[in-house]
Amino acid sequence: MSEVYAVRRTRLRDHCNASGSTAALVSRPANVRYLSGAARGNAVLLLGRTEDVLVCAEPPDDRIPHNRPDEALRLHVMTGIGGDPAVEAAALALAQGVDVLAVEEHHLTVTRHRAIRETAPRLRLTGVGGAVEQLRVVKDEEEISCLRIGAEIADQALGELLESILVGRTERHLALELERRLVDHGADGPAFPTSVATGPNAGRPGHRPTDRRVEEGDFLSVCLGATYRGYRCEIGRTFVIGTAPADWQIELYDLVFSAQRAGRESLVPGAACRDVDRAARQVLDSAGYAEALPVLTGHGVGLEIDEDPQLTPAAMGKLDACVPVTVEPGVHLPGRGGVRIDDTLVVRPEADGGPELLTITTKELLAL
Amino acid sequence: MSEVYAVRRTRLRDHCNASGSTAALVSRPANVRYLSGAARGNAVLLLGRTEDVLVCAEPPDDRIPHNRPDEALRLHVMTGIGGDPAVEAAALALAQGVDVLAVEEHHLTVTRHRAIRETAPRLRLTGVGGAVEQLRVVKDEEEISCLRIGAEIADQALGELLESILVGRTERHLALELERRLVDHGADGPAFPTSVATGPNAGRPGHRPTDRRVEEGDFLSVCLGATYRGYRCEIGRTFVIGTAPADWQIELYDLVFSAQRAGRESLVPGAACRDVDRAARQVLDSAGYAEALPVLTGHGVGLEIDEDPQLTPAAMGKLDACVPVTVEPGVHLPGRGGVRIDDTLVVRPEADGGPELLTITTKELLAL
Repeated sequence: MSEVYAVRRTRLRDHCNASGSTAALVSRPANVRYLSGAARGNAVLLLGRTEDVLVCAEPPDDRIPHNRPDEALRLHVMTGIGGDPAVEAAALALAQGVDVLAVEEHHLTVTRHRAIRETAPRLRLTGVGGAVEQLRVVKDEEEISCLRIGAEIADQALGELLESILVGRTERHLALELERRLVDHGADGPAFPTSVATGPNAGRPGHRPTDRRVEEGDFLSVCLGATYRGYRCEIGRTFVIGTAPADWQIELYDLVFSAQRAGRESLVPGAACRDVDRAARQVLDSAGYAEALPVLTGHGVGLEIDEDPQLTPAAMGKLDACVPVTVEPGVHLPGRGGVRIDDTLVVRPEADGGPELLTITTKELLAL
Repeated sequence: MSEVYAVRRTRLRDHCNASGSTAALVSRPANVRYLSGAARGNAVLLLGRTEDVLVCAEPPDDRIPHNRPDEALRLHVMTGIGGDPAVEAAALALAQGVDVLAVEEHHLTVTRHRAIRETAPRLRLTGVGGAVEQLRVVKDEEEISCLRIGAEIADQALGELLESILVGRTERHLALELERRLVDHGADGPAFPTSVATGPNAGRPGHRPTDRRVEEGDFLSVCLGATYRGYRCEIGRTFVIGTAPADWQIELYDLVFSAQRAGRESLVPGAACRDVDRAARQVLDSAGYAEALPVLTGHGVGLEIDEDPQLTPAAMGKLDACVPVTVEPGVHLPGRGGVRIDDTLVVRPEADGGPELLTITTKELLAL
């Protein structure tokens, strides 16, 4: 893996050099992990003038799964208590003769930024912007393979839940049960708090599980994901509870299914993000649900569960091949509930078979 | 509850006025919750010149447990997508005729701070420092009652686990099981990621559960806590697995127990935080474990699991009555394991019976 990290750091270094910085200080945890392999939350990475240094408050913990800092990096473990690795890294940069240091202004607080300035007043600080986040958008096959395994784990956990008795159990219990199953099947942990929504809650994006119990006739929508080697995927499905769905449930489900399919089918390299959003959104819009729509119909996934690109009406930019995204339109009708269908897919060229579906649980409307 | 929040805001306003600001912008989620009752992560609170406003990107969600914004506050829900409530609040401050706005520089990123400056260039921004965190240190009886209930829940979850069969189960499963039980007993959720550590992992502070299984003869150390109405408590215990502990286990346990008791007994109003730390630390120190000691032996708890005061050798300040803290010394011997005993207590004057122990699970060395 070591080479992969070195290549990524070289790309960031090229970016910095092009914009006039001789060094960069990376502090956002997912960015540090991307460039160094270190999963430790408080570590920062100095992309230095003479060498790259991983600065940690504590030695790396090999008991954290898949936390293996690149051995090509110099590891600098701080002595003393309560110091800020970012401040320490700035001092190291100065010692290396760095004059302009690019920092992650969207991650550092005003207080930490000031502490860096005060420790190294001769250092000119600039912003590196979202450069690392941009590097992270297109994934390599190793990263996609982690997402694929995470998706398999999520599919398994969901599949097992569907075989159990659901009526009478609370949203919170079902969510905890799913999270236990994710870990059972080898996930590092859940990719985000598992959402289980029943009856009038069903279909609400980001619903946090309550003590409401599953009842006959409910819509049940579930959204979960596994983290595997740091990579986070997402799957969402909606079911009906009982022997037969009501007509309105079937209609609403078919509509959201069509919207989600339209979104999935528009995932081609070169497609504008806003066009993918529109493909899904207009199906719901034209059925009269403009008001009930969420702000986004999908987003990138990777080391964080919500990354670029964003699939929204105002999104700029186009999709590239090897970009994993969710497609997750939904409709929620206040007081009645709703439907949400969510897949993680990888954008692939037509010649490679088109978008690769990672979350393969059926999207038929199951009555459980 | 409404009055409580108003009183807290008045105290912050007094602080700001004394330091020359006419208004304050509170963005750190626990601080927003403390002053407004709103548990929503992205809400910010403007302590204005003419009125106080809670600015949210989305309407408050009444399905989140105990998320009831103070009705005396004006609620300002943003229209449009992707805006920053902090920037919106700064614009509202300007419209109220505010000239100096104190912000939480230890929470706002450089980028958000700049966006505020650019939106409201006529506003002079200063820092409010840790003023709200300082207000939060001493708890009222309502807050302590939430901590007490949380501690009861954690005690119950731990007690039930001890009645089950442990040998052969993995750290990760035991941790998940404990978290499920916390929720079963009415917690909003775990107060922090539950730590279960077996054998050579036992006694490591902040150990993240692995796939190691419980074995005969192991030390087993468990650290968990419940969140109840937003308040977070903590309990840690160490057990031995099997019929009889080894001599070294009994010795080490007795030592840590003595250190923890010394820490607990030194919790009196007016005690210096560093003296409480020293009371616990010197027991371990004088037994020759200086190297194996953690950086802190306790810390405040409340809306966050790690608050002021810090019980460390370098800590400044004294304890007040009604300050809840953990006392959690431990020793970890690399390769062998160790012991950690952790309680949440409330500092109380001698006349009221001395420190109030919230986590009442026995601290005898149980062989399970």
